[in-house]
Amino acid sequence: MGSEKTLVIGMFGFGVVGEGLYKVLKQTPSLKASIKKVCIKNTQKKRNAPADLFTSNPDDLLYDPEINVIVEVINDSAAGYEIVTTALNNGKDVVSASKKMLSEHLPELIALQEKTGKSLLYEASACASIPVIRNLEEYYDNDLLHSIKAIVNGSTNFILTKMFEEELNFKEALLLAQQLGFAESDPTLDIEGFDAANKWVLLLTHSYGIDTTIQDMLFNGITQISPIDAEVAQSRNQSIKLVAQAKKLQNGKVASFLLPQFVDQADQLYFVKNEYNGVVIETGFADKQFFYGKGAGSFPTASAVLSDIAALRYGYRYEYKKRNQQQPAELSDSYNLRVFISFESLANVPKEEFTSIEEWHSGNERSYLIGTIPYQSLIHKDWWKTNNNSLILMPNNIVENSEVSELKKMSLSLAGLDV
Amino acid sequence: MGSEKTLVIGMFGFGVVGEGLYKVLKQTPSLKASIKKVCIKNTQKKRNAPADLFTSNPDDLLYDPEINVIVEVINDSAAGYEIVTTALNNGKDVVSASKKMLSEHLPELIALQEKTGKSLLYEASACASIPVIRNLEEYYDNDLLHSIKAIVNGSTNFILTKMFEEELNFKEALLLAQQLGFAESDPTLDIEGFDAANKWVLLLTHSYGIDTTIQDMLFNGITQISPIDAEVAQSRNQSIKLVAQAKKLQNGKVASFLLPQFVDQADQLYFVKNEYNGVVIETGFADKQFFYGKGAGSFPTASAVLSDIAALRYGYRYEYKKRNQQQPAELSDSYNLRVFISFESLANVPKEEFTSIEEWHSGNERSYLIGTIPYQSLIHKDWWKTNNNSLILMPNNIVENSEVSELKKMSLSLAGLDV
Repeated sequence: MGSEKTLVIGMFGFGVVGEGLYKVLKQTPSLKASIKKVCIKNTQKKRNAPADLFTSNPDDLLYDPEINVIVEVINDSAAGYEIVTTALNNGKDVVSASKKMLSEHLPELIALQEKTGKSLLYEASACASIPVIRNLEEYYDNDLLHSIKAIVNGSTNFILTKMFEEELNFKEALLLAQQLGFAESDPTLDIEGFDAANKWVLLLTHSYGIDTTIQDMLFNGITQISPIDAEVAQSRNQSIKLVAQAKKLQNGKVASFLLPQFVDQADQLYFVKNEYNGVVIETGFADKQFFYGKGAGSFPTASAVLSDIAALRYGYRYEYKKRNQQQPAELSDSYNLRVFISFESLANVPKEEFTSIEEWHSGNERSYLIGTIPYQSLIHKDWWKTNNNSLILMPNNIVENSEVSELKKMSLSLAGLDV
Repeated sequence: MGSEKTLVIGMFGFGVVGEGLYKVLKQTPSLKASIKKVCIKNTQKKRNAPADLFTSNPDDLLYDPEINVIVEVINDSAAGYEIVTTALNNGKDVVSASKKMLSEHLPELIALQEKTGKSLLYEASACASIPVIRNLEEYYDNDLLHSIKAIVNGSTNFILTKMFEEELNFKEALLLAQQLGFAESDPTLDIEGFDAANKWVLLLTHSYGIDTTIQDMLFNGITQISPIDAEVAQSRNQSIKLVAQAKKLQNGKVASFLLPQFVDQADQLYFVKNEYNGVVIETGFADKQFFYGKGAGSFPTASAVLSDIAALRYGYRYEYKKRNQQQPAELSDSYNLRVFISFESLANVPKEEFTSIEEWHSGNERSYLIGTIPYQSLIHKDWWKTNNNSLILMPNNIVENSEVSELKKMSLSLAGLDV
């Protein structure tokens, strides 16, 4: 319709995502978007596209006045940051898929959008094919968003699924994920939770308007999960998932963390298997909503980049309206978590810090307990992820301070135990 | 940000949705949208809002130059049509939730948007809280959309859930739905499929760019489903859902219908229970995506209306780009459906029209068969929904003509049966 503008794209990167995009845009003239130039490192490599499409000089894109959109699908945070900021400063709209770079620089990139009046879209950077950022922007006002929880990393979800459904141990499942291309050859960023944490930084901004960093986030990956933990989950008809979660507390502040959780079958996330991602959003108005789709891979990523390109045609920008509110939400550091912890030696568990202990199982090789512990006893501490300790959140894991005194009374006798 | 415009709203209707919207907009000044006037039929009724907000004269809204957005949340198709067309012609953007009116007039309302340059948004009219229309508009190009299937009516899904999970018969389940407010006192529009069919007309336009009407749609509700059908489903570990479905065939045309289906547990729709709705979208790029949420009720509906209002602030319009393609998709009338049909008397089933029959069960009160039948033997015919016949689609229900000869050979012996 009338207000559509023709997009002339300069693209950085021509890997599987970039090449896929190039093909689709060529086949879809109705999109009124074409790639004029692609910047790559190695111009000698043979590509399935005309040679004159390529350059190794970023300035050929960033300083071409005809190019009005920069698409950045490379795998290098520092270079990505340079590209995105230069492009915005040069009056170009930008689409990026670099979650790590975005997570590290989001507040300044928002300021730069405001200053330049240009748009930076990055749907591909969280949950790939699930349009979660756009939906959070468009659909859920801060006041109405009760909670959001999500599986945002396909690799770890694949591994956990195989550990449960095919009873592989962690290493076997990881190897399978690598063979099938669902995990990198260096899987650290995935299995230790960094990739998910970067995505969660972005989603916190778009759900609650909260700026944070992974350094300030309570998070872990899945490397500590032991076979006994999986057995406990099975016996409870639950599975273990790596879940990012944020919830508005009674005092209006937001609890946020990213940890392995026991998930029961009444939870939509239970059914998110293999490399899929899922997001459950609870709101005052719309009640519970669930989004499910492929969270990684070249095609789902290209799909999200494509939708951002389509949105730029009508001048779409994230409004960051929750962040721009007079009183944006804040993170809370004053609440408790209901946790399961399995361990080799109780000496490595500061049981005096628990508000209450509800269950206790002693075993030959590993023991475990279930109890409630203040957030402060976990954040910026590492006892719970070292010494072969394994911490997994229980369902209904957030216990507000006002609920604690009650718990304390109930569990006095248990808390007195000393093994 | 810069391009936002302040919305001055004239609203038609002040029922639960309208009143909810009024409250939320008052509490959310950041939305920069306020309701100036509300048009209602009965100005004598006491309302929870200042008396000078109300009028019974539509022209006070439609001809007020300060009002730039009309929100229409009344329950009257003819009046709704009059309001929406007048508002667009008077240069106002419009948000409507009237699915029946929209289904009956969509092509002309699209033309009117083009003519006037104004925007008509109606997310609330299909699946309420699930942002399916916007996502179809933004995310899935016609070429890439393999299939879409959806549960779009909460009342019937609630009834079917209760029939399965609590083994109620149809009438008991309907009564319960009415008592809990999930079905109207006159439930005909829901249980006979009309409500879902109207929504499906809208979703076909936004998924494949296809204009159609419920008169040309192969659809049914759930009134024919018998206890034996439910038993068969149970024995197959399946449930019965009322599913709208569209799929691109090998020849590029689209198969579309809305019928009860057996749904197995590998299908995301199996887990859509009670009054919830769900949509499964399969695409070339993003693979399979699933959206789930409340499909009806005042709050989910208000939530969708609110999101449309928010989108109008930055001039959002549906682009109808699949419809505006040079070669928009067309509906196919040349394919076959794999069906289960239970009946009292075989005399009422035209078994000679079946391409193949794979299963046959004879019983005292009802018998049933499973077979493949051309679409043409069902569309515009009513043998399958009269005489106490009950037709339910099988999973994997679309059989292309090219696959039929194979089937014919396989089932020759069965097809020869004559009971």
